[in-house]
Amino acid sequence: MRTANVILMGLGNVGRAFVRLIQDKKEVCKESYGLDLRLSAAFKKDGGFFSDKSLDLADVLELKGNDFSRHPDWKPGLRLEDVLGCFKSGLLVECTPTDIKTGEPGLGHITAALKRKWPVAAASKGALVVNFKGLKALAQQNGAALKFSGATAAALPTLDVGLYSLAGAEITAIEGILTGTTNYILTRMEEGFSFEDALKEAQSRGIAEPDPALDIEGWDTACKILLISNAVVGTEFSLRDISLEGISGVSPTDVQKSRKEGKALKLLGRLINERGRARAEVRLIPIGPSHPLFNVSGANKAITFFTDTMGSITVSGGKSDPRATAAALLKDIINIYRN
Amino acid sequence: MRTANVILMGLGNVGRAFVRLIQDKKEVCKESYGLDLRLSAAFKKDGGFFSDKSLDLADVLELKGNDFSRHPDWKPGLRLEDVLGCFKSGLLVECTPTDIKTGEPGLGHITAALKRKWPVAAASKGALVVNFKGLKALAQQNGAALKFSGATAAALPTLDVGLYSLAGAEITAIEGILTGTTNYILTRMEEGFSFEDALKEAQSRGIAEPDPALDIEGWDTACKILLISNAVVGTEFSLRDISLEGISGVSPTDVQKSRKEGKALKLLGRLINERGRARAEVRLIPIGPSHPLFNVSGANKAITFFTDTMGSITVSGGKSDPRATAAALLKDIINIYRN
Repeated sequence: MRTANVILMGLGNVGRAFVRLIQDKKEVCKESYGLDLRLSAAFKKDGGFFSDKSLDLADVLELKGNDFSRHPDWKPGLRLEDVLGCFKSGLLVECTPTDIKTGEPGLGHITAALKRKWPVAAASKGALVVNFKGLKALAQQNGAALKFSGATAAALPTLDVGLYSLAGAEITAIEGILTGTTNYILTRMEEGFSFEDALKEAQSRGIAEPDPALDIEGWDTACKILLISNAVVGTEFSLRDISLEGISGVSPTDVQKSRKEGKALKLLGRLINERGRARAEVRLIPIGPSHPLFNVSGANKAITFFTDTMGSITVSGGKSDPRATAAALLKDIINIYRN
Repeated sequence: MRTANVILMGLGNVGRAFVRLIQDKKEVCKESYGLDLRLSAAFKKDGGFFSDKSLDLADVLELKGNDFSRHPDWKPGLRLEDVLGCFKSGLLVECTPTDIKTGEPGLGHITAALKRKWPVAAASKGALVVNFKGLKALAQQNGAALKFSGATAAALPTLDVGLYSLAGAEITAIEGILTGTTNYILTRMEEGFSFEDALKEAQSRGIAEPDPALDIEGWDTACKILLISNAVVGTEFSLRDISLEGISGVSPTDVQKSRKEGKALKLLGRLINERGRARAEVRLIPIGPSHPLFNVSGANKAITFFTDTMGSITVSGGKSDPRATAAALLKDIINIYRN
């Protein structure tokens, strides 16, 4: 049995779902994978839970809203760096909000963990998008695993398939419908909705964020294709290398015109990797029925890898809720300790 | 750099494609995975290639048909057991023809390798179908890896996704279109072909075997769902546990009736894993447009995993030719040495 002392950064929807999931899956992790996951500390912006003994997961879960102050292990103002020295070993689980400009606060957390040779599982994209190359090098120097399925379409296995299932094959291109929100809006516009009405509906159903700009302008897709391409193909893209197109300028007429021609208008994150030259882009493209992503509709996501020896492989589906993202974190953690 | 002494069993289409592939991918394996693959011996029914030095791959590849006799390293009548003692370590690649009644000759080869603590990558199904439990136990006792992506839909990553990408999730059901031949015939019957004409066309296009019984009676699908279920969910099925249905009794009227009702008639390999009770079957089932396998047509294959935390994940595509099967073997080998 191996023990992992989990240090959780972020107690929003995903962080809390993760706390709940590792409680629910405690026995499965022990019995099926020989892994004992213990929550040792959990931080949010204004403090942290920390105890000399291991934290009681149920206690943390039962706290409503932000009212942590009455919990005996809640230390207002406590930060990760205050307690780093208390752990002989740890596993950092990074779930703070994504900031694609600075990468913070995740960048600081991940850097601190890797420097201590701790493995990291990340659900937030910011740090990796801002400094992929640096974090990858730091992880290698320290022999520490750095996994981020939770940041690259979560339950949809993008990195695993690219790195593990296609090992030895040359990936000549990747195309993905990587943002559920934009695909949902485009599908509704095919059915006659205006962009605005489709967006409002997506928001009311919890599919789109209250501030949907990152999704509809293509940034979310760009971040994901950047991370997938850098991880799987070994490119060193930063966001400025990726040409970007969003869906806010699209009219129902555009979408319906494609449909009348037997095609579906899709926002694709793409990597084209030909003759040693790679480029990535986010583009609105009409695709025909023979394209493996043609039937991916609504809030669904999917990715196709085109290879030299195995043909094209498409993965589709996977839930997009906080529990599914937590499940992607858990999957990465199990695979970190299994290897 | 790690070195793997490859002992190849079987020099049919897949075995030869494998020899060619590891020659083509020699530098990729070294540079990207730190793995030096060397062909140390290669056997067919009536003899083997073996030399004190490593074999020249090009020499073996250039041999036409069965005319091995003039090759300096060809030893008529040589068998695996004659040379086992010559290798300090080895990697067995099993590509002999599949016999689902006796499991031989693969069963003997795999058993001998695992007893010597050699890892095994298999493309033939027979041994694993006949004695999955025994081989799994033998591999565990000897701490030797036993991988068989090549036997479970090859380039379509079924085992990887189930074991690696869904780690920690409970798999409540699996449904797969696992045999390209049967799916091709059903698709053509939707278009009005009789079963006999569709089969003839599949044979003339090299999709169906000259003796197609294993495919059209459902045995091929049964073998694959057996192996996937046993490997991923931990069942201990043998073939007699799987209820079987083939497609030879299907009429174009049946297929077209489903299509008129908006459904597609598909031969599915299924595992239902509910409340700790698992059962597997091969069944012809009409599935509707909301089913993830509805659009899988022609000779394509796909598999859907239904889970508790991640929703349903579908993988589709992947070539079915000998080179793609060889690529699945190479993928397994890279992952064996990477861990």
